[in-house]
Amino acid sequence: MPIKMANIRVLSEQTVKHCLQQQIQACFDACAEAYRYYGREQSVLSEPSSLYLQLPASRPKKCRLKGAHFADAGVAGFRLASPGSYFTWVVDSESGQPRGIVAENWLHRRRTAVTGALTLSWLRPRLQSVALIGAGKIGFECAISLGHAYPEATILLGCRDVEKGKAFITQLPIALAERMQVHDIETAVKAAEAVLTITKADRAFVRGEWLQPNAVALSMGGVPEFDFETWNRSQHFILDDLGYALKQGDLHHWVRSNGLTIDQIEAKLTGLIGEVALRPDDYCSACQGLTLAVIQGMAVCDVAMAGLALAVAESEGLGQVVDLDGC
Amino acid sequence: MPIKMANIRVLSEQTVKHCLQQQIQACFDACAEAYRYYGREQSVLSEPSSLYLQLPASRPKKCRLKGAHFADAGVAGFRLASPGSYFTWVVDSESGQPRGIVAENWLHRRRTAVTGALTLSWLRPRLQSVALIGAGKIGFECAISLGHAYPEATILLGCRDVEKGKAFITQLPIALAERMQVHDIETAVKAAEAVLTITKADRAFVRGEWLQPNAVALSMGGVPEFDFETWNRSQHFILDDLGYALKQGDLHHWVRSNGLTIDQIEAKLTGLIGEVALRPDDYCSACQGLTLAVIQGMAVCDVAMAGLALAVAESEGLGQVVDLDGC
Repeated sequence: MPIKMANIRVLSEQTVKHCLQQQIQACFDACAEAYRYYGREQSVLSEPSSLYLQLPASRPKKCRLKGAHFADAGVAGFRLASPGSYFTWVVDSESGQPRGIVAENWLHRRRTAVTGALTLSWLRPRLQSVALIGAGKIGFECAISLGHAYPEATILLGCRDVEKGKAFITQLPIALAERMQVHDIETAVKAAEAVLTITKADRAFVRGEWLQPNAVALSMGGVPEFDFETWNRSQHFILDDLGYALKQGDLHHWVRSNGLTIDQIEAKLTGLIGEVALRPDDYCSACQGLTLAVIQGMAVCDVAMAGLALAVAESEGLGQVVDLDGC
Repeated sequence: MPIKMANIRVLSEQTVKHCLQQQIQACFDACAEAYRYYGREQSVLSEPSSLYLQLPASRPKKCRLKGAHFADAGVAGFRLASPGSYFTWVVDSESGQPRGIVAENWLHRRRTAVTGALTLSWLRPRLQSVALIGAGKIGFECAISLGHAYPEATILLGCRDVEKGKAFITQLPIALAERMQVHDIETAVKAAEAVLTITKADRAFVRGEWLQPNAVALSMGGVPEFDFETWNRSQHFILDDLGYALKQGDLHHWVRSNGLTIDQIEAKLTGLIGEVALRPDDYCSACQGLTLAVIQGMAVCDVAMAGLALAVAESEGLGQVVDLDGC
């Protein structure tokens, strides 16, 4: 049955997971395409990149919205985030007509994990060891994505609480769990060729001096994770979006607490992730030596993933179709 | 059947109209409550008040989003506007959980008309004559709302093309059409105790010198409508939201073309519409003499109207309910 423009498809958390949980390569492809689109178009986000609405609830809550377009897949959209309730409103990038509503709790975690693993795979395609610090829900997806990007590598889970780390690993698929190790953070960082952090820490927990001379430090959390020595030691620097990075995460904290300036950031910037996506071999060659990457996620990848979920759901006849002219 | 939090209700254009077209007093009440809420809370809009996304279509299109909360009715939301496709995403103002999606093409016109008529009814509760300039789709709703707010008054439709004005009137309910007159703009303005403009003009078409000494000049369009003499002559000035008024409409044009300054605007400001809503009798007494009102619409009224449509639809079992956990 052909879908009219006036129909939208609504996908629950469960349906999104059903459509994409096993389709990890399709998720990598969608995010890689979205980053290449960003590299070519440069302006892909809403203006400003986000807005928020403070709800006057008894426990105040913030709704946040971000928009982006991804015309290569014919979609654009807005991520509508209330605490505990995340959806993307997907529209046609040509007509602006609504196409669907996609539940985003899990999909956003998958997106975050995939963009981290993609970044590493472009900068260091042949890692033998990678440290993952972050054993929460996004960390779980990061383990899956790193396992997919590096099918032979050892994944070193760096934990403050080693027992919790061991429990985390038992939740993962066994073939992946078998090539994971649990260590304290310092041991994991020192042993790894790359370090991915995705935590809710309240202060930096990776010392720059621990990093191997050719390591990649990949900072993904919206909190302080690497210390300022990491910035000072880094010879190369990859970033997704400066505006967002100045609002939260390591760059934000270095500016606020360590006197880092925009000029210094721009002087060290080797390339934006969109440029890396277009010419990964060039950036892989250029980024010999300690390389810092701050990748916190862009709405263009959310929109790409939501578009992918809608396409898979449509082909499988999943989700609920609502006729916007007839409801 | 009780509605779970995880359900949303989706209302088409047709259903929204079915629910509210005849419920004009309920629309007045909802917007009046929303303005009083604005008067009390002051901060009711998203920060910033709007965000846009330029779609990279062959004919470039802009999506625009605005957010607001209206906790008195338990709702908050975002207006998602693509060209030709307008919806409000309604969430619970306490939990942030989605509540519904409401088609906004007609509802936004109704909201605009009601806010204009409300403003006049607070400033001049006993008008005998009011000029309406604007014979488009919003103008149609303005005629309905003015007819409701002033059941005895004569409505003078001011038109560049009197024949088109006569055709416009034939579309209105006969009891209303019978107390409307069609004139050229100058004649209508000179004869009326208040003048409401809602047009797509490309230059100002009302001369301040035409206005009666005690008239209200109510500028609602996002374009130039009243000339700068109107500003100069006005003794009192009522506004909804300064940020938006500086972006489009008469205030924007006077700043850009006539050297009007923010200081001058703030010096003449008698009150914001939220304050007028809380104490209409005080403002009615204070605003003797020529009074200018710039009312272009606030998202808090859109959210109030969308919440009203959802409440009516729920009580009548209309719209399509989607279980966000089970789709």
